[in-house]
Amino acid sequence: MVANPSLVLKKIDEIVFENQEAPTITEPTDVIVQVKKTGICGSDIHFYQHGKIGNYILTKPMVLGHESAGVVTEVGPGVKYLRVGDNVAIEPGVPSRFSDAYKSGRYNLCPHMRFAATPSTKDEPNPPGTLCKYFKSPEDFLVKLPDHVSLELGAMVEPLSVGVHACKIGKVKFGDTVAVFGAGPVGLLTAATAKTFGAAKVIIIDVFDNKLQMAKDIGVVTHTFNSKTDGDYNDLIKHFGGQPNVVLECTGADPCVGMGVNICAPGGTFIQVGNAAAPVKFPITQFAMKELTLYGSFRYGFGDYQDAVNIFDANYKNGKDKAPIDFERLITHRFKFDDAIKAYDLVRSGCGAVKCLIDGPE
Amino acid sequence: MVANPSLVLKKIDEIVFENQEAPTITEPTDVIVQVKKTGICGSDIHFYQHGKIGNYILTKPMVLGHESAGVVTEVGPGVKYLRVGDNVAIEPGVPSRFSDAYKSGRYNLCPHMRFAATPSTKDEPNPPGTLCKYFKSPEDFLVKLPDHVSLELGAMVEPLSVGVHACKIGKVKFGDTVAVFGAGPVGLLTAATAKTFGAAKVIIIDVFDNKLQMAKDIGVVTHTFNSKTDGDYNDLIKHFGGQPNVVLECTGADPCVGMGVNICAPGGTFIQVGNAAAPVKFPITQFAMKELTLYGSFRYGFGDYQDAVNIFDANYKNGKDKAPIDFERLITHRFKFDDAIKAYDLVRSGCGAVKCLIDGPE
Amino acid sequence: MVANPSLVLKKIDEIVFENQEAPTITEPTDVIVQVKKTGICGSDIHFYQHGKIGNYILTKPMVLGHESAGVVTEVGPGVKYLRVGDNVAIEPGVPSRFSDAYKSGRYNLCPHMRFAATPSTKDEPNPPGTLCKYFKSPEDFLVKLPDHVSLELGAMVEPLSVGVHACKIGKVKFGDTVAVFGAGPVGLLTAATAKTFGAAKVIIIDVFDNKLQMAKDIGVVTHTFNSKTDGDYNDLIKHFGGQPNVVLECTGADPCVGMGVNICAPGGTFIQVGNAAAPVKFPITQFAMKELTLYGSFRYGFGDYQDAVNIFDANYKNGKDKAPIDFERLITHRFKFDDAIKAYDLVRSGCGAVKCLIDGPE
Amino acid sequence: MVANPSLVLKKIDEIVFENQEAPTITEPTDVIVQVKKTGICGSDIHFYQHGKIGNYILTKPMVLGHESAGVVTEVGPGVKYLRVGDNVAIEPGVPSRFSDAYKSGRYNLCPHMRFAATPSTKDEPNPPGTLCKYFKSPEDFLVKLPDHVSLELGAMVEPLSVGVHACKIGKVKFGDTVAVFGAGPVGLLTAATAKTFGAAKVIIIDVFDNKLQMAKDIGVVTHTFNSKTDGDYNDLIKHFGGQPNVVLECTGADPCVGMGVNICAPGGTFIQVGNAAAPVKFPITQFAMKELTLYGSFRYGFGDYQDAVNIFDANYKNGKDKAPIDFERLITHRFKFDDAIKAYDLVRSGCGAVKCLIDGPE
Repeated sequence: MVANPSLVLKKIDEIVFENQEAPTITEPTDVIVQVKKTGICGSDIHFYQHGKIGNYILTKPMVLGHESAGVVTEVGPGVKYLRVGDNVAIEPGVPSRFSDAYKSGRYNLCPHMRFAATPSTKDEPNPPGTLCKYFKSPEDFLVKLPDHVSLELGAMVEPLSVGVHACKIGKVKFGDTVAVFGAGPVGLLTAATAKTFGAAKVIIIDVFDNKLQMAKDIGVVTHTFNSKTDGDYNDLIKHFGGQPNVVLECTGADPCVGMGVNICAPGGTFIQVGNAAAPVKFPITQFAMKELTLYGSFRYGFGDYQDAVNIFDANYKNGKDKAPIDFERLITHRFKFDDAIKAYDLVRSGCGAVKCLIDGPE
Repeated sequence: MVANPSLVLKKIDEIVFENQEAPTITEPTDVIVQVKKTGICGSDIHFYQHGKIGNYILTKPMVLGHESAGVVTEVGPGVKYLRVGDNVAIEPGVPSRFSDAYKSGRYNLCPHMRFAATPSTKDEPNPPGTLCKYFKSPEDFLVKLPDHVSLELGAMVEPLSVGVHACKIGKVKFGDTVAVFGAGPVGLLTAATAKTFGAAKVIIIDVFDNKLQMAKDIGVVTHTFNSKTDGDYNDLIKHFGGQPNVVLECTGADPCVGMGVNICAPGGTFIQVGNAAAPVKFPITQFAMKELTLYGSFRYGFGDYQDAVNIFDANYKNGKDKAPIDFERLITHRFKFDDAIKAYDLVRSGCGAVKCLIDGPE
Repeated sequence: MVANPSLVLKKIDEIVFENQEAPTITEPTDVIVQVKKTGICGSDIHFYQHGKIGNYILTKPMVLGHESAGVVTEVGPGVKYLRVGDNVAIEPGVPSRFSDAYKSGRYNLCPHMRFAATPSTKDEPNPPGTLCKYFKSPEDFLVKLPDHVSLELGAMVEPLSVGVHACKIGKVKFGDTVAVFGAGPVGLLTAATAKTFGAAKVIIIDVFDNKLQMAKDIGVVTHTFNSKTDGDYNDLIKHFGGQPNVVLECTGADPCVGMGVNICAPGGTFIQVGNAAAPVKFPITQFAMKELTLYGSFRYGFGDYQDAVNIFDANYKNGKDKAPIDFERLITHRFKFDDAIKAYDLVRSGCGAVKCLIDGPE
Repeated sequence: MVANPSLVLKKIDEIVFENQEAPTITEPTDVIVQVKKTGICGSDIHFYQHGKIGNYILTKPMVLGHESAGVVTEVGPGVKYLRVGDNVAIEPGVPSRFSDAYKSGRYNLCPHMRFAATPSTKDEPNPPGTLCKYFKSPEDFLVKLPDHVSLELGAMVEPLSVGVHACKIGKVKFGDTVAVFGAGPVGLLTAATAKTFGAAKVIIIDVFDNKLQMAKDIGVVTHTFNSKTDGDYNDLIKHFGGQPNVVLECTGADPCVGMGVNICAPGGTFIQVGNAAAPVKFPITQFAMKELTLYGSFRYGFGDYQDAVNIFDANYKNGKDKAPIDFERLITHRFKFDDAIKAYDLVRSGCGAVKCLIDGPE
């Protein structure tokens, strides 16, 4: 038995280190990855504090972590493209190969999805998280990182894929004028995707000036708007020089959803990325009379992880100093694995971390 | 000057008969139609009672009526297809030929639309309504009625087009399972369209059993559900034998919108047809996690009027007794023009009229 | 060992009966079906005569048959919906669950597809055909036949699915005017699908009057055109009363493809269903100037088999005498299994069979 | 009467200067533009040499020129956005505002289109060309040039719009791998559009090394391939590192169309931009079995001119030295208006001009 140091959420408020059994190859396409970098996600913190998100309820211990990159250490006999030593980003949710959702090309909707660090809703062990030394994945849920994409960036492929999925669902394209609500990690990475997809103008809306400043500094937006201090939706339209034809809502907050419908141009597109605890007030008549389209966006699907890696690759292909977007500035905190609990407590404290990365166990 | 007897809404609570001047041909493609049948729409009643709908505010007198069919009495020199004596359905809103909305194929979103019996939001006379003897329209906003389609059906082309537009926007197709909220005229005609487009199962939801019964009787649904007495959304799914993959919301009512999101299958489509006075509570996280798509649908656009006429034509092509849908049962009340005010008062009283038709002036 | 009487194509011109070993359940979702009805397809005859179709080359013996329906005799432990005794249509091609094609919702493009009675292009045994007593399939490649759909109709689900796939790819919908080239089984079933999907007018084009007559008799078209004797494409447009906005090309014949482009309305859709031995002459400039769209359609994919079963079900739900389309007339010949070689020789002789069915072994 | 020096194609082989009458404002939205720069298009040369292209046959004299930019000199009373002195690109084809094509958002398919320097197919004067001093256009067929976009670039908006339209029809997007056939002006500008829309890799195929070199030099491609000397389609795939998922065919040449189908990845998109004199050999079975989609692309439509201007604007927004694409290198020849006939003769001689610009009359 190979040891597998892991970070385990036992129950609300209790995270511990445990030495679990390392996974072994059982299917021909299995790959073992030694995890090197893992980001902390807001949902991790939510489980830590509240023990549940919607229908996902923590009833037994669960290894944390689902934003990870690492190095391939072993490959099954059916593995075709990956080699030991390759750096990879880990796609943390593996659906059933037999579900209609998977078969029809929308595997993120698979009811049998097993998603790392998300409690199972069925009577079965929780899916393992990635905050451990060795993690097993089928080959096709790993994406090889090219030379320009570091393992740290690799750990951000997961949240970037959320933005990629949203922009693909909403068909963001050259010349679009885009409003992004929320300047947290997902909002920033969604704005980055919109820009990379060719948006002519991108405005980000938040209530914290430092977050808006970050968006500007890393180069993902052309405009910012503080919805607390810069006025109402008419002011936003005026400041932006017109109504955006695309809204990417990354907060789930009631006033943001309403403002998003208010500002969106007739015939425009509204993509809901963020989650809300409760139903929001929705100006549905205005929505209908402008014939807007609202797309719900959930996690990511076929090709999104690869596209996210490609975005990083394209951004850095001419060197860091010529990169249009400074993604690395999003990594505001870094911890050793032994300090992982401290990392969680820090993020939980609301310190202002954008993205906090934890090293894998040595 | 030719006399043009007209029904005029002077202000809230005051409808009068007036003899106005008949329109004359001024553009080459103008057509004069003698109006024969006009339906009363809920919006007419709303202006009668409240003097406003959203931004449309009655500030000066307005001829009522926008659901009409009639006979061509005169054609301009540039008219190509229509002839004097043709029966036609009148599309009541004419957009600007120069707007981006029109040019891009979505003329219902034209900001310069002049829509019969809808107060202008600009400093100009209100667009004329159709409750008069002679109405002028450009040829391409008239659709010729074929032999199988009576003038009475012609007066229902307008509300049917609302359903056609909604089903086209939502891409309703063979095999879909469809839930329609609201069994008023628009709900019923939307259900009829969904059925005609090939829906395998259609359920209609309302709180009045007599309306549900009407839906069944005329042959537009396979299932009905009384949301007051038949249980909650789980009961509906059970009764329907699964989650519908299309929801057509024709009420704008808060609980219907929420129930619609609850029942819709993952990856499904939600089309908002009905209007609400105020924002509704919207379960946006559930919407996003199921990756639903919400389409706003407003009035009707290119080709919809013709499609609506084709639906009537196809329905009656083998004779009335073999018609799959009994559209004529929707016409529950008929009035002479001289009794038009009585007709409005009757509908306003909430008598249970489904569709009330008024003859044109002799 | 259970005996499995099978019909084997040994090599060109040589079909024999063989007693092979019956399949056994090896995967949890496996189902064993006793084959009851099998249709002969043109491709079967082609392999019989020429030993190859395109890249598919017969190099070792192969069990024939891929258009079959039967009865479930055994189910694996992971089978969820099917029960012993259920009648099912058999989808004959099973792709790899791990290919990008499958994962992205287009499994008919899977390079690892194993398709019954089609020689493998790899160094592996040919996939088994369905002309045998027992056939094994994963549950999700079987569709249960409802009461209204006989086993004979079940054997026609395969060619009907080809039409369903084509009409779905080409988004055939209510009100379309459709031209179908070729009045063989696929052309007829494609026309049937177009009609079921709501096409307002369907014209079928062929060079044999008896085939055109069949199309009329079974109720799948509104117009017919003999391209040898009825004139050129202008005559066709005149006869049809306008240019079709959808062309479904089911022959692969050079003149049909050209005529299809000639008649198609600007902005229209052309779906290529049929195959050609060689490149065809294609009026590409006319194609481009009318901004047509050409969709290649290959076999069938997610949901098509179920839709085909639903088409039969909807057609017969009010009883055979009220069925809009008389699909059963397509079955012009029936053989016992013991006479299967005679059946092949008959069809090969060009006797004018539309669809020839062979019973399964007793 | 204001003089309007114009360049007139009298008949095959005969171009003359003429002093015609300058246009005057007759409609409220009319704008008079003083033409400053005009590009020579291959179609101009074709009319010069052959007097016809397809159904467009020169039967009476015609002012040449349709790729122009100029300065606004007069505006009608209904003009909203443009001012005297504005630099504008001229969209040379004005459709009927009443056609179904226009009304449905596809005005490039309007049968009543009047397109500069293209002989009318009806019994009416030819539409005027732009090689004159004053040209009249409705406001909405002019696009204002921003500061970064010179009048010379303005004259290239027309061919760039052809590429924009093709890439929009084919939905070219981030990450696509694109093959462009033909390295003439349209091929180069189509490649430029594909790159701007986010294509990850672009290969251009031609038979002239100097044209391929130009494509590389101006920065629109990542790969080049000489189809005469670099091998067959397998070599192209190998050289490109895979099958492109998008093919943009800008030649209309028989071998290019065939090669395009050969190399295109299963499920991929083929956009036909170029025109051919005769039908081409088309491997339609391969096309169908890979389920490719072929889009015909004709000229440009709603929004394309504006997008083309935006492409130039985005390219030059950080200054000429930082421009990703060196569009100006495409302008290989420049002539005064008085030398316009020489310009035509030079281009006709096949001198190797990429884009030849002619100044407007003083």
